[in-house]
Amino acid sequence: MRLAVPLVRKAATSASASGPATTTTSLKVGDALRSGRRRFTEADVAAYAAVSGDRNPVHLDDAFARGAGGFARGRVVHGMLAASLFPALIASRFPGAVYASQSLRFAAPVYVGDEAAAEVRALNIKSAGGRHIVKFATKCFASGHEDDEGALAIDGEAMVFLPTLQLSSDSIAE
Amino acid sequence: MRLAVPLVRKAATSASASGPATTTTSLKVGDALRSGRRRFTEADVAAYAAVSGDRNPVHLDDAFARGAGGFARGRVVHGMLAASLFPALIASRFPGAVYASQSLRFAAPVYVGDEAAAEVRALNIKSAGGRHIVKFATKCFASGHEDDEGALAIDGEAMVFLPTLQLSSDSIAE
Repeated sequence: MRLAVPLVRKAATSASASGPATTTTSLKVGDALRSGRRRFTEADVAAYAAVSGDRNPVHLDDAFARGAGGFARGRVVHGMLAASLFPALIASRFPGAVYASQSLRFAAPVYVGDEAAAEVRALNIKSAGGRHIVKFATKCFASGHEDDEGALAIDGEAMVFLPTLQLSSDSIAE
Repeated sequence: MRLAVPLVRKAATSASASGPATTTTSLKVGDALRSGRRRFTEADVAAYAAVSGDRNPVHLDDAFARGAGGFARGRVVHGMLAASLFPALIASRFPGAVYASQSLRFAAPVYVGDEAAAEVRALNIKSAGGRHIVKFATKCFASGHEDDEGALAIDGEAMVFLPTLQLSSDSIAE
């Protein structure tokens, strides 16, 4: 699936989720946060395989990935590693964010060596028990080349408590 | 939430997802796979923070986790790291497994130093385009002590293509 708009390229001009945290304390429905592009290297995938214990050969063996895995360009990044861009991005802007839920649809592979970027958009903001919970649309785009506009790799939604969120009176849904 | 049945203790007698892969090629609806218990250490959380870029202080700073995070026992394991038990378990039995989707509800924290174990149960098996896709119920249980029966930490479902799955004729839903 190709995108009509160059979301990944725009993302490159935003603050990086892995760089120094820029703490955004305000948010309203419709606001989007974007991570910088991140290249997932062979070393990243090896480190993630070690810490997660997930040694699926589709992530570690090019021949297996192309054959049994059916991945044309070989090894792919663990889906859960690419999906970690979402909480990393949200926590970089809202330290102390606590995940309530996340859905993930893996729409296209992120190949080892490719770049990916995350975008999360506030769909709904509620206040419950003195805490704010935000529903985000979460999308991850992957691209093999710098001038590639990016394909939707992961789609889903997250519900996240944001203790550091400050709201104006018109941004809350009661 | 406490469990009436000691699912985690049973899991300890099953093969470990991080041990040598025991390739199970058969599966029928209702079958469950269980990982061994795994302790998530401070070093694991630090390694995951490094590779994911998720430096949320609820994972790295006890005082912050207890205060702003509201976690009584301090630092918690990244939810996505605990959730990696699911694909790790599935891939250990079905090398080449490819994730189509995963939903995750974070029901209770896994504290740094606690043990967790995963259970996945086949809810549905379909054959599509020469490939088998299985819907699993995915649960992760966490416990602070060896004699603790475990609390439900993560609940959800996964849809996974299993290229190495061999089916008997009565195990497929058409």
